[in-house]
Amino acid sequence: MDTKALVGILMGSDSDLSVMQDAAKVLADLGIGSEVHTLSAHRTPEEVVSYVQKSEGAGYKVFICGAGGAAHLAGVVAAHTALPVIGVPLASAKMGAAGVDALFSTVQMPPGIPVATVGIGGAKNAGILAAQMIGAGDEAVRAKVAEYKAKMAKDIKAKDAELQEKGFEKYLKDKGLI
Amino acid sequence: MDTKALVGILMGSDSDLSVMQDAAKVLADLGIGSEVHTLSAHRTPEEVVSYVQKSEGAGYKVFICGAGGAAHLAGVVAAHTALPVIGVPLASAKMGAAGVDALFSTVQMPPGIPVATVGIGGAKNAGILAAQMIGAGDEAVRAKVAEYKAKMAKDIKAKDAELQEKGFEKYLKDKGLI
Amino acid sequence: MDTKALVGILMGSDSDLSVMQDAAKVLADLGIGSEVHTLSAHRTPEEVVSYVQKSEGAGYKVFICGAGGAAHLAGVVAAHTALPVIGVPLASAKMGAAGVDALFSTVQMPPGIPVATVGIGGAKNAGILAAQMIGAGDEAVRAKVAEYKAKMAKDIKAKDAELQEKGFEKYLKDKGLI
Amino acid sequence: MDTKALVGILMGSDSDLSVMQDAAKVLADLGIGSEVHTLSAHRTPEEVVSYVQKSEGAGYKVFICGAGGAAHLAGVVAAHTALPVIGVPLASAKMGAAGVDALFSTVQMPPGIPVATVGIGGAKNAGILAAQMIGAGDEAVRAKVAEYKAKMAKDIKAKDAELQEKGFEKYLKDKGLI
Amino acid sequence: MDTKALVGILMGSDSDLSVMQDAAKVLADLGIGSEVHTLSAHRTPEEVVSYVQKSEGAGYKVFICGAGGAAHLAGVVAAHTALPVIGVPLASAKMGAAGVDALFSTVQMPPGIPVATVGIGGAKNAGILAAQMIGAGDEAVRAKVAEYKAKMAKDIKAKDAELQEKGFEKYLKDKGLI
Amino acid sequence: MDTKALVGILMGSDSDLSVMQDAAKVLADLGIGSEVHTLSAHRTPEEVVSYVQKSEGAGYKVFICGAGGAAHLAGVVAAHTALPVIGVPLASAKMGAAGVDALFSTVQMPPGIPVATVGIGGAKNAGILAAQMIGAGDEAVRAKVAEYKAKMAKDIKAKDAELQEKGFEKYLKDKGLI
Amino acid sequence: MDTKALVGILMGSDSDLSVMQDAAKVLADLGIGSEVHTLSAHRTPEEVVSYVQKSEGAGYKVFICGAGGAAHLAGVVAAHTALPVIGVPLASAKMGAAGVDALFSTVQMPPGIPVATVGIGGAKNAGILAAQMIGAGDEAVRAKVAEYKAKMAKDIKAKDAELQEKGFEKYLKDKGLI
Amino acid sequence: MDTKALVGILMGSDSDLSVMQDAAKVLADLGIGSEVHTLSAHRTPEEVVSYVQKSEGAGYKVFICGAGGAAHLAGVVAAHTALPVIGVPLASAKMGAAGVDALFSTVQMPPGIPVATVGIGGAKNAGILAAQMIGAGDEAVRAKVAEYKAKMAKDIKAKDAELQEKGFEKYLKDKGLI
Repeated sequence: MDTKALVGILMGSDSDLSVMQDAAKVLADLGIGSEVHTLSAHRTPEEVVSYVQKSEGAGYKVFICGAGGAAHLAGVVAAHTALPVIGVPLASAKMGAAGVDALFSTVQMPPGIPVATVGIGGAKNAGILAAQMIGAGDEAVRAKVAEYKAKMAKDIKAKDAELQEKGFEKYLKDKGLI
Repeated sequence: MDTKALVGILMGSDSDLSVMQDAAKVLADLGIGSEVHTLSAHRTPEEVVSYVQKSEGAGYKVFICGAGGAAHLAGVVAAHTALPVIGVPLASAKMGAAGVDALFSTVQMPPGIPVATVGIGGAKNAGILAAQMIGAGDEAVRAKVAEYKAKMAKDIKAKDAELQEKGFEKYLKDKGLI
Repeated sequence: MDTKALVGILMGSDSDLSVMQDAAKVLADLGIGSEVHTLSAHRTPEEVVSYVQKSEGAGYKVFICGAGGAAHLAGVVAAHTALPVIGVPLASAKMGAAGVDALFSTVQMPPGIPVATVGIGGAKNAGILAAQMIGAGDEAVRAKVAEYKAKMAKDIKAKDAELQEKGFEKYLKDKGLI
Repeated sequence: MDTKALVGILMGSDSDLSVMQDAAKVLADLGIGSEVHTLSAHRTPEEVVSYVQKSEGAGYKVFICGAGGAAHLAGVVAAHTALPVIGVPLASAKMGAAGVDALFSTVQMPPGIPVATVGIGGAKNAGILAAQMIGAGDEAVRAKVAEYKAKMAKDIKAKDAELQEKGFEKYLKDKGLI
Repeated sequence: MDTKALVGILMGSDSDLSVMQDAAKVLADLGIGSEVHTLSAHRTPEEVVSYVQKSEGAGYKVFICGAGGAAHLAGVVAAHTALPVIGVPLASAKMGAAGVDALFSTVQMPPGIPVATVGIGGAKNAGILAAQMIGAGDEAVRAKVAEYKAKMAKDIKAKDAELQEKGFEKYLKDKGLI
Repeated sequence: MDTKALVGILMGSDSDLSVMQDAAKVLADLGIGSEVHTLSAHRTPEEVVSYVQKSEGAGYKVFICGAGGAAHLAGVVAAHTALPVIGVPLASAKMGAAGVDALFSTVQMPPGIPVATVGIGGAKNAGILAAQMIGAGDEAVRAKVAEYKAKMAKDIKAKDAELQEKGFEKYLKDKGLI
Repeated sequence: MDTKALVGILMGSDSDLSVMQDAAKVLADLGIGSEVHTLSAHRTPEEVVSYVQKSEGAGYKVFICGAGGAAHLAGVVAAHTALPVIGVPLASAKMGAAGVDALFSTVQMPPGIPVATVGIGGAKNAGILAAQMIGAGDEAVRAKVAEYKAKMAKDIKAKDAELQEKGFEKYLKDKGLI
Repeated sequence: MDTKALVGILMGSDSDLSVMQDAAKVLADLGIGSEVHTLSAHRTPEEVVSYVQKSEGAGYKVFICGAGGAAHLAGVVAAHTALPVIGVPLASAKMGAAGVDALFSTVQMPPGIPVATVGIGGAKNAGILAAQMIGAGDEAVRAKVAEYKAKMAKDIKAKDAELQEKGFEKYLKDKGLI
């Protein structure tokens, strides 16, 4: 357990890792430590519970849980902590239903046990949301988030300026978008 | 704990009981004892786990779990037992999505942890399915199920005979179907 | 503006108020002040922006936004603040689609601007989630949330005990559930 | 700002440009100038508003807005203008839900703020619809649209004639359709 | 045929009239004449075509078409005119699918023949959108639309002021919302 | 068995009869005899098969099958006859999913065994379609269908004339539509 | 016009031809002549109507119409004939919604104008269904259909026999199925 | 017929075999014999019925049925046996609807005839569920299932340990997951 981490990032299988790593990366960009684990609500339920309890004791602030299909991981974590839990529904190529199954399984929680759900495959947004939650009680983090958003705006405006200069046909070619 | 019961019927809230009682009733009709509990995967997770372990030790054969929305109860029970688990997705008037949320949350389980899912609101079928599972290893129970099915067929044939005799207009009136 | 409030609760129309009041009520139960406004992303966009900026300056920690149909309110608020924003998708009887339209419009946010989405009609969970976010940086609030969850567990266990004592048929009758 | 343009075409990200360029192209075919911008409802909200106000002042007649996921761009533009706004829902490969999320987020607008929604990925139709709107008040443009539709009909009839002459098997081979 | 009308409002059945009248009413509020007809794409196809051709000749500017189920009316009208056509998908209590069938049947038009689709049941928005289309070429109409939107904003702000004064509990009671 | 009947109308339960009777009624209006039976694909499978074989031998021309949920009846009938089979998907209030389950279960048949599917709850259309099928080989029946369609057109035109005379407000009141 | 053809096969675009040719092929296998046309309900509406009227006069028995998106072709044809019309909903890669849009647009027809809908992409089944409709009035055709079905059954049984002999692992390898 | 087999695995077409073989394989891993057949509910209905009756007589305990689209196979088998039947809904690339059609067709069974449905494409879970059903009456089998689940947990924990040691970036590279 990384004692400086504030966010625990969990997923049920290492096949989810290539998507879920985006949460850890954006948190690192925002100066927040995190820890990434593959633990399954259904295959290693005890480990999930003991991890949550240990992490809450160690000063963690937020959990991020990614899962596909009947995505129970975020809900199971939320059942064992008073900390906020973010759920990332993942689309599973094999299981049909285009990720809507995971979205419903993550977001439609019963009264009393909310899961803060982001969009299908939205691991990056989960990381930013975790930073915003921490930022609610920590001005330095909030300033980092504001800065991050300002940079995004600047990037889009720079792209738009380039688009105005080049016209859309040249822009598409230069960017390799067609 | 009812020592003669073979089937544990769980649901997350007593608001599900009016639907879920059908499982207990049809099991009783088939001569199989069951026990009904309100225990929540999210609000009383430890009680769910300890109930499952106790029941498996006491000789229970099947669990039936009914839940709506992000319906995790069947999956959580399945995570803690090697016995078969039947899931009943329930439509929740309040939560939109017409029960499809609960269906996805119950049926789309990851490899290794199946839940035997019946139709939305299908508590009666869950009871019959539990009896069929027990009947796979118990010929007397299987005979009861076969008898039950024969009775259903007989009822439909009797209705059809009445329909032929009366014609559909008189039949609808006599049965109060219009 | 209520200077002691930590949570701003917004909705586009007073027809959403009967659902959204649950957020304010559960926050009050958890000892957290909130302020309730009807402001529309589409009909009063400037007022939404100026409210968000004023509130962030005044020390608010979280926004909760409820909307139906093409539910843009949470996204518009999220575009103007670095604080976390919770979205409550609302089903609209008139508009068909059973609230799935509002769910998609709230949760499927682009990279960089997350909305912490709860279930369809989940105003109460939005309030609890807001408390959990504040609790991430405030141990007293976290303790309140833990207590609230403990009470929920106790209530369910009491109901289950009553159910065991009475049996499901008597229980259903006594509770007026059938 | 192109002073001769009558249609402003906006999209949230340059990744939408390869689809959205079809609107600009068909408008050019119909003799109508347009301007293409990447501006995001969520990442550059102020720029969207100021662009809309500037363009309306400069004599623009219609806005076309393309977005995926929780597609708010058309709604945000519609909130700030009395001109008609056309929304193009875009499917996002990454976000699951097959574009139905963007369709709901674009079309299910609240009373008072309509968005004229075309089909998923329907950028070309958005351009034609913009021309039809301008044509409602400008006979020359309407004649251009009528001509465009006549040409489409002629093309289909020519293809059908070729199909009758060749038979479907030879036609499919000659056109490289199998 | 009303020679002063600018908008033709069509629907397939008089059972759609109680919803569709909202289009005519809001147009009247905005000072625009309209004509309401029940004509069916499937049961009176020739009448639809001849009506469209006559109306276009008589100076009509926009058509509004409301239909449920396999809602073809707007598409059939669009096939016979170069004027813009607005489609209103209607939910049909009898046909299941919650209006999503009508939405798909109205909005997913092939390249070349757009239908400007509004939300399910969105007859009022169809009227406003028609006014915006006419307003694109008529400043007086556009000013009327702007005024209408300003009034909506004022109404919401007045409600919010009343809500702040009374608090949500008293407000809900006074308005009869609970 | 009614020897003069040409159409066999089957449904799985007498609870479907109030909807399915519309097929028999419209067939009677078109001068075609039919026979109505409650027989279940799942509860009385042998009876379904023997009925189909007997009826085909007795000169029946078409089968109409209505079912809800996992609606297999039409498919099972189609598996046992070379005659055309019409499927009517029925929405089941109890089972959620708004009839889309029955639609999918009826229409998505594998190659080789088509079911001619009509809309959800479309029993009347099933009757008309059966008449059209018989009419493909019987000019007198086809004339009856053409006459039926002409009458529908006349009715709509009469209603439209009344609407033009009265205006929509008076029309709605007189017809009791509001 | 092919005077010996009994079935008219229409589609809105030659991009649908690679799927729709299966209808013509299976009809040829069953000894029934057909004619294939690309005619669009929206782009060449007059041609569709005149084709339908000409064909009905020339002794055609059934129409088959394939279309994607807002699939109106079958409905438009059905509006102009008393003959049975079969609709084939086609999935459009570009338009999202996975063919469910075309299914709803084809099947959910209003009372009086049925379309006999087959599964998404089900052109082959449309051909077989057309043959079954013709076979309802023509014993020789019905015998051909019965023979076709018998051959299918024989093929499956032969495959199963091969599977039993080889075991599934060798079978999969030999058939190139993995 | 393999006299030592306890589970009959059926599918409608050999194109389903590459998915369905997983059921046979996991059963073999759990020490349970099975038999694999391609038999179609619609194309070889008599063979399905006679197979089910023969197998039940020969001591089979469970049936597993995989099918796509209007997936009737499991329901047809369930109609003819008192043994438990497991349904595996399969997504069909050709038929659109992403497997939700097969899910609805399998799970939404009428009262009296349950099908134990697993997730879309869930053949492996079907095998495990069959073992759990047999294990309900056979402790040795249940122990095998428990062992299988313990091994899964161990595998995940080993992967997590490797992930902690390497960090997610190196882990993803080493495993070839990016």
